[in-house]
Amino acid sequence: MANYHNLSNVFTTTETSLSNTLFKSPPFHSFTALILEISPNPFPNTMAQEHHNVIKNNTINLETPIFDPEFETFRSRFNSDHIYVAGHVLVYPSYNGFFEKPGLYLDQLFVRKCYRGLGFGKMLFSAVASQAANNGMGMVDWLVADWNEKSMKFYDKMGAHYIPQYKLCKLYGEKLQQYANISP
Amino acid sequence: MANYHNLSNVFTTTETSLSNTLFKSPPFHSFTALILEISPNPFPNTMAQEHHNVIKNNTINLETPIFDPEFETFRSRFNSDHIYVAGHVLVYPSYNGFFEKPGLYLDQLFVRKCYRGLGFGKMLFSAVASQAANNGMGMVDWLVADWNEKSMKFYDKMGAHYIPQYKLCKLYGEKLQQYANISP
Repeated sequence: MANYHNLSNVFTTTETSLSNTLFKSPPFHSFTALILEISPNPFPNTMAQEHHNVIKNNTINLETPIFDPEFETFRSRFNSDHIYVAGHVLVYPSYNGFFEKPGLYLDQLFVRKCYRGLGFGKMLFSAVASQAANNGMGMVDWLVADWNEKSMKFYDKMGAHYIPQYKLCKLYGEKLQQYANISP
Repeated sequence: MANYHNLSNVFTTTETSLSNTLFKSPPFHSFTALILEISPNPFPNTMAQEHHNVIKNNTINLETPIFDPEFETFRSRFNSDHIYVAGHVLVYPSYNGFFEKPGLYLDQLFVRKCYRGLGFGKMLFSAVASQAANNGMGMVDWLVADWNEKSMKFYDKMGAHYIPQYKLCKLYGEKLQQYANISP
């Protein structure tokens, strides 16, 4: 995903940093990743019982089979021969002081290249939006890069409003460290 | 603040909605408001002991006294005759999957009109940035409205990077409710 955004130069994520911050709370209570795993075979019935946080199975009928050139790398941690990771979303609780209800902030939605155009992105986005709608939340917020017309069309279909008058600001690196150990 | 942003038409916050979502966790672990209270007199020593979440006192020397036309409305809940609310920030933990460390998202920073230009905004922003820097966080993120040159100049001085290529998207209202009770 960092390659997709030409941001591999700022990418500092490690397996340790992810495992230290994700999956520490019940899903959606803090930083939460949903992993989209697919299989040409029905998922084993035992999976949902053994792994509490499996949301559900869903079937997409394809006309032609998918060839995943990196299937070895993206084999599921569920240790099955024919389950592969096809995408993910990363969300966390968000808040806007103008609105009555909290929401979910969608930090990442990604479907691996060989799985695009088949409805998996819609499946991931809908999982997040349904979670927000069914839990009385007021919104789902996210950012889209202005060069990414394909994503913008996708989000249009999903019901997004664009609020173009806001610019993202970020304090990080040395500029952030200048605030360490000073009295506010 | 909703008036300041011409957003009073979308403002749905109530005292109940705030008290149901804020102050439920230790500061900065979830949705957190910092309230800036000021007094012409030294703050009572007992305040920090009685109220765990008081961060600190700080003194700004003024050349002329401030007249607050709404001082009755903004009297502190600390029940003192001469302590008033001058501003606030609203923050919560944030995450960016590209970066190793979580951060803080700054949803609101507001100083009431009669208290502007005196360093109180800097005090509030610094309290958030110091919290992030001193707790090993990687960033502070926020949005600024593109018409708000005064704020942009302020954030420049505070060390902000602007990332103009991202647009804010929001799913809410009826469009969000369409996702209720559907299977993703």
